[in-house]
Amino acid sequence: MGILSIDFGGTQTRVAWFDSHLTMQVRKDSRTRREDGIAAVIGRIITLARDVMPEPGKDSLQAIGICAPGPQAYTGIILNASTLPGWDQIPLAKIISEALGAPAYMENDANLGALAEYHRGAAQGADPALYLTVSTGIGGGAVINGHLFTGWQGMALEPGHMKFRHPDGQFYSLEALASGTGIGRLARVRLAAYHTPSVLRALAVVDGRAVGEAAAQGDALAREVITESGEWLGWGLLSLVHLFNPRVIVMGGSVSLLGDLILAPARRILAENVIDPLFLPADLIRPAQLGDDVCLIGAAMHARAQFEAHK
Amino acid sequence: MGILSIDFGGTQTRVAWFDSHLTMQVRKDSRTRREDGIAAVIGRIITLARDVMPEPGKDSLQAIGICAPGPQAYTGIILNASTLPGWDQIPLAKIISEALGAPAYMENDANLGALAEYHRGAAQGADPALYLTVSTGIGGGAVINGHLFTGWQGMALEPGHMKFRHPDGQFYSLEALASGTGIGRLARVRLAAYHTPSVLRALAVVDGRAVGEAAAQGDALAREVITESGEWLGWGLLSLVHLFNPRVIVMGGSVSLLGDLILAPARRILAENVIDPLFLPADLIRPAQLGDDVCLIGAAMHARAQFEAHK
Repeated sequence: MGILSIDFGGTQTRVAWFDSHLTMQVRKDSRTRREDGIAAVIGRIITLARDVMPEPGKDSLQAIGICAPGPQAYTGIILNASTLPGWDQIPLAKIISEALGAPAYMENDANLGALAEYHRGAAQGADPALYLTVSTGIGGGAVINGHLFTGWQGMALEPGHMKFRHPDGQFYSLEALASGTGIGRLARVRLAAYHTPSVLRALAVVDGRAVGEAAAQGDALAREVITESGEWLGWGLLSLVHLFNPRVIVMGGSVSLLGDLILAPARRILAENVIDPLFLPADLIRPAQLGDDVCLIGAAMHARAQFEAHK
Repeated sequence: MGILSIDFGGTQTRVAWFDSHLTMQVRKDSRTRREDGIAAVIGRIITLARDVMPEPGKDSLQAIGICAPGPQAYTGIILNASTLPGWDQIPLAKIISEALGAPAYMENDANLGALAEYHRGAAQGADPALYLTVSTGIGGGAVINGHLFTGWQGMALEPGHMKFRHPDGQFYSLEALASGTGIGRLARVRLAAYHTPSVLRALAVVDGRAVGEAAAQGDALAREVITESGEWLGWGLLSLVHLFNPRVIVMGGSVSLLGDLILAPARRILAENVIDPLFLPADLIRPAQLGDDVCLIGAAMHARAQFEAHK
């Protein structure tokens, strides 16, 4: 009995088949193409799913795991995902379950990332384990006492929505200050406010990726932006450290791949402000190990566990 | 078999005897009198303890619960408590255990507050349950899946040590912005910076209590200060809500007794900034029910549970 795993995001959709040992056997990717409309997108997910499923007789479908953005409150519906507007009216888990004829369990992408990194990645044996994914947005998940922590209504954790007061006088979410989107915005503000030379001035689009690349090449303005975002990330991590006293914080997502450019300022804020060094074991912050497969793996594990719990 | 419970704070020491049903039978209080030195303070704790214990033959001592401030990292030593300087060299739980001849289990005061309010107070049946005590400092505790959540090294939660950037350009801990100590400081800053009339100008000492009393009487400057602290409290609660998705947040401590003066601005910040109203059930924030006995009750429960787990 195998598990079908679906990683559904605003940009990319990934589908994989896991065998009875939860080993990934086949995987297919496709661009989500939201512009085609909700019905077409769902139809393509189901087609992709059928593509990776084994022929009848070789193996059978036990359960479906779905990984999706945004807090979902155990509804099987994608609520509040900025990357998937309009989807909060769609009972996605129910539709996929009925189309494929097996129970479907949907969970937040960062929560499943935490589960996967805890069981098979950088957080093995670490409890509590926090997982942060910093890319277009900022998501997070926690494993506490060996179990995924989801809070009262399944909406924990949303670390990207801690808010901080910026020197400009406004309060911004951590996501607006330290995600790829936030990095792009902070760079555009600096380019408009100052005359500092920068390779970014020659670009038509100044987004997080462009700023990261310019910083890696040594552009001074881009480095200032990444340092500022790293410091905001540090203030966010400081709250997480004082609230959860985690054994490990796994950092995933494209922005985390900037490495010390963004993490060194974050570590400095942590070290300067933590109330006791016991909160900061040397290997507290670790890079994610499971790469692009993290949500597929987490969704497969979650579906298996939910199926076993409900059968 | 009864439990001796000790609530040891920088200002007050309380000691109580709980019978086998964990019902409080006798309680004695004493001012801590830190100025007498550590040995004298410990001697007085032990004398108080012997005063509340039943006569030999009537009941016997099973275990000792000790409630103390600061993160303690399972050491039985009070680390980092601003209200008890110098105590981080003293193996307090060990000394009391040896003096009274029973195992002693020490835990952070706000963690034990969370446990007590979850089992017998305002958080019954609510999971996750957070408890915040806002008085001289700000402490916090959480019950998750029915168990006290203490993190990797026993140091969770420290919500008073989330940090926020103030308009003056510095980062301050929530404790420095919204505790009684913080309220006093913010008032002194305003009194020095502005010429606004205020009843506080006639006082020799402007502390949190004085500001609270002046605000309750309608003093405009005092109300502005309490409103500012309430808003900072709101930003702290916003992070807690987005990170833990709690069913309830129980508010204890003397500053919480200011009620809507401080909680209305906090609720406004929460309502204006939460990403989904599902995070804010109408009865999310509730006043603590157990009053001054909260830590004695929590320490007794904790000692019984630890004794059962280790026997």
